[in-house]
Amino acid sequence: MKRILLTIAYDGTNYSGWQKQLSPEVKTVEGELEKALRALFRSPNLICIGASRTDRGVHALGQRATIDVETNIPVEKIPLAVRSLLPSDIVVVKAEEVPADFHPRYDCIKKTYEYRIWNGPMRNPKERLYTTFVYSPLDLEKMNKAASNFIGTYDFAAFCAAGSTVSSTVRSIFDCYVKSEGNVISIYVTGDGFLYNMVRIMAGTLIAVGQDKVSPDEILQIILSGNREKAGITAEPQGLTLQEIYYDLHGKAVDSEG
Amino acid sequence: MKRILLTIAYDGTNYSGWQKQLSPEVKTVEGELEKALRALFRSPNLICIGASRTDRGVHALGQRATIDVETNIPVEKIPLAVRSLLPSDIVVVKAEEVPADFHPRYDCIKKTYEYRIWNGPMRNPKERLYTTFVYSPLDLEKMNKAASNFIGTYDFAAFCAAGSTVSSTVRSIFDCYVKSEGNVISIYVTGDGFLYNMVRIMAGTLIAVGQDKVSPDEILQIILSGNREKAGITAEPQGLTLQEIYYDLHGKAVDSEG
Repeated sequence: MKRILLTIAYDGTNYSGWQKQLSPEVKTVEGELEKALRALFRSPNLICIGASRTDRGVHALGQRATIDVETNIPVEKIPLAVRSLLPSDIVVVKAEEVPADFHPRYDCIKKTYEYRIWNGPMRNPKERLYTTFVYSPLDLEKMNKAASNFIGTYDFAAFCAAGSTVSSTVRSIFDCYVKSEGNVISIYVTGDGFLYNMVRIMAGTLIAVGQDKVSPDEILQIILSGNREKAGITAEPQGLTLQEIYYDLHGKAVDSEG
Repeated sequence: MKRILLTIAYDGTNYSGWQKQLSPEVKTVEGELEKALRALFRSPNLICIGASRTDRGVHALGQRATIDVETNIPVEKIPLAVRSLLPSDIVVVKAEEVPADFHPRYDCIKKTYEYRIWNGPMRNPKERLYTTFVYSPLDLEKMNKAASNFIGTYDFAAFCAAGSTVSSTVRSIFDCYVKSEGNVISIYVTGDGFLYNMVRIMAGTLIAVGQDKVSPDEILQIILSGNREKAGITAEPQGLTLQEIYYDLHGKAVDSEG
């Protein structure tokens, strides 16, 4: 039996998020992926364990999931082998063998998300599924100053959707910055983990900063308030992409041999 | 009665091309646009005259069309006024009044198309609707050399889909070059007009050059042969976007006053 770590890219537009639902009519990325892998490996009980539960309409270029399989297919050939079994909006980008005790969620060191904004007088229809549209010109410099104020270890309860039941709302943000290219403004954020809707609430707050509704210096006060109502709106899902999940695979492999 | 020139952006994915079809079940960009404008202006006989007949799956950021209307809506407000009547994949970007004898097709000076290629080992699902996927690494330098060989006035019969009934296949290409950014390779081509599938056949030929199947120096021979079979394949529609259509609106306005 091999444990295989998959890197998965998808366009989340047509899915009710990553996580498989009990009702088979609800199309999810995990559901489609599991179906394809079960067919490929002729293994009706195969399950995927994903690293991140992306929401409805959210995209990924570097989602990760593990499967346990007995197979003669060389591991590096799995992406190509599964291709014709998957819809065109889900792609297995990479497959690699990992130690038997590797867990895609618990072994994650950090994750990077990108949130994209189309900032211009008119919508761009080719970008409508991959950006949120903001008409008024955003102040990039202020957004960047505000973004840097997210860096640190804080209780991010003010940036967590109501109804979440996590035991701790403390998270570490290692990096957060804003870049623009043409009409697209991208927010990049890297942290050890994210609360429910956290990146989208951060994005909504940074948009408010860019519109001069919130000052960059208020970010820390908002965090420390722990009050969801002080932060900005939850920005739309289609602007969000899970870019990368980082593991110390080498360290892990050494551990498993030790 | 005012003649109004509209600039239209659309994602062509869900349409059978620009041009309205006799069958109302066939969804086209022109058909949807006309429906929205007829509702806005309460003018059931309003017709659009488009500048370019883009194909099924082809996109536009700068399509143009004229309408003739009696209206009290200020011309510059039309894009916003029609927005809620249009599906989200069609956007009227701009509206401007033009002289009564202006024609979007006959008065066109030149057009620019972009053809986008996703060149990398694995598909990117977020780019699948807006690029063609080429696995093997393309030689950008050779593609650029080949692209420059398209510039000039030639009989482009070798770059025209069979079955076309135009009276002349002579066209002038003013500019043609290739640029890359990350995994995306873009071909830009500007000319006074294009034959049926011409840009997509040029793109297919430039991809063959990038794959070392055709040498840059062969471009001129292929053009001069007039033989469609000597050129490359017709590249997929989703990589193509009509970027811009150029008019000498100032000169035209002066003419109409003279």
